[in-house]
Amino acid sequence: MPKLQNYKRDLDYSYTPGIFPSMELLNNAPEYIQRLLIDESKGGEGLEKLVNGCKARNIRIENATKMLKNISGKKNCHAALVFRKCFRELDLACNHVCLNSIMDSGNLGTILRTLSGFGIKDIAIIKPAVDVFEPHTVRASMGAVFSMRVQEFDSFEQYQSQYSEREFYPFMLDGSVPLREAAQKSIGNYTLIFGNEGSGLPDVFSTVGTPVRIPHNSDIDSLNLAIAVAIGAYEFTVRKAMEG
Amino acid sequence: MPKLQNYKRDLDYSYTPGIFPSMELLNNAPEYIQRLLIDESKGGEGLEKLVNGCKARNIRIENATKMLKNISGKKNCHAALVFRKCFRELDLACNHVCLNSIMDSGNLGTILRTLSGFGIKDIAIIKPAVDVFEPHTVRASMGAVFSMRVQEFDSFEQYQSQYSEREFYPFMLDGSVPLREAAQKSIGNYTLIFGNEGSGLPDVFSTVGTPVRIPHNSDIDSLNLAIAVAIGAYEFTVRKAMEG
Repeated sequence: MPKLQNYKRDLDYSYTPGIFPSMELLNNAPEYIQRLLIDESKGGEGLEKLVNGCKARNIRIENATKMLKNISGKKNCHAALVFRKCFRELDLACNHVCLNSIMDSGNLGTILRTLSGFGIKDIAIIKPAVDVFEPHTVRASMGAVFSMRVQEFDSFEQYQSQYSEREFYPFMLDGSVPLREAAQKSIGNYTLIFGNEGSGLPDVFSTVGTPVRIPHNSDIDSLNLAIAVAIGAYEFTVRKAMEG
Repeated sequence: MPKLQNYKRDLDYSYTPGIFPSMELLNNAPEYIQRLLIDESKGGEGLEKLVNGCKARNIRIENATKMLKNISGKKNCHAALVFRKCFRELDLACNHVCLNSIMDSGNLGTILRTLSGFGIKDIAIIKPAVDVFEPHTVRASMGAVFSMRVQEFDSFEQYQSQYSEREFYPFMLDGSVPLREAAQKSIGNYTLIFGNEGSGLPDVFSTVGTPVRIPHNSDIDSLNLAIAVAIGAYEFTVRKAMEG
């Protein structure tokens, strides 16, 4: 087996620092796991469960204290899985969220976790963007990324041409339709589209589908991206949740 | 003037690291400002505006490069205001958010900014809790904290006895009423109550007012606190925003 390297984007594998995201990967996508790294001097119920789960699947286990510290940037990381990055095609029959030029890994992790909770499992990432499989993102998502389909695209047009038969809702500060109205009128599969943390979506998105705004007062310039995505996903999914 | 100290909770003053939160303080609550700290070797439009605003108000300006680095933890912090911590009584006639044992300063800053955008300006903090005037919180709030009323309490009972004539909505994973239903039935001034990042509200809150849940699936244990507060505030304020 090749010697493991510190995380870099161009590696075809990455790490899940921490017991919780590692368990999520083991439960949801074990076929992508390559090895388990542990700090043998540590114990605990969670670690034991993870070790036993890996043993049951014949996953190689290594003592790698120093590597764990490098991966997590912390001294108290007791375990991490090494996994092959696993991009998957999105499901045409499902609702999507499209993130255009998202740059903050912690933000992305929180967004993935929230969307998972609202049942939106298909995520289009338009590059340039942060790496969805970066260890910090994986950790911030609490492993939610492993129960989702994530696909990267070089441009929005590329995404749009592959997944054209659906409603598009770009979220913009000056979107013409308030969020609730848009959600209530939606009748088909949809894609909620969000821009970069600092600059939002480029103006050209005002010609894409139905531009949506989340009403808020002028005391703030804009909502935090993770907050905006959460409110959008909540509003679009709550009706169905209430009817169901 | 006494020598400035690195930030500690028991000081009666704190710092606003960065141009943006400093401008917010200058615009919204200049009466609390004690001095302006700047890095004289730096320039720029924002810094100039801040310096001129302070000169116009006869606020003392000091070159304090090293102190700026200590306060912000960063090398590129060009300015900070020193301000007297300014707790204020909440407005009985307004809606409140009550945060019970919130412990993460970045979370609290994001929450304050979001609430400000939805027009909820009165925040009760139940201790133990992170310090709302900690520099990191001030910065994460983008200065929103200076346009709000924040009051600390030793217990929820203390808050409740001072502000009793209102609807209480504790947000709990097993809350009996879904969020939208609770928001639609609300007719008076209300307080939305949220618990700690890790543990949520103690069970005893199920007997306080109308316990609310934000519907989500079991793929996640719970929503991130800042996300939950944002969705709650959105749902409770959006109806009025649409009617208005």
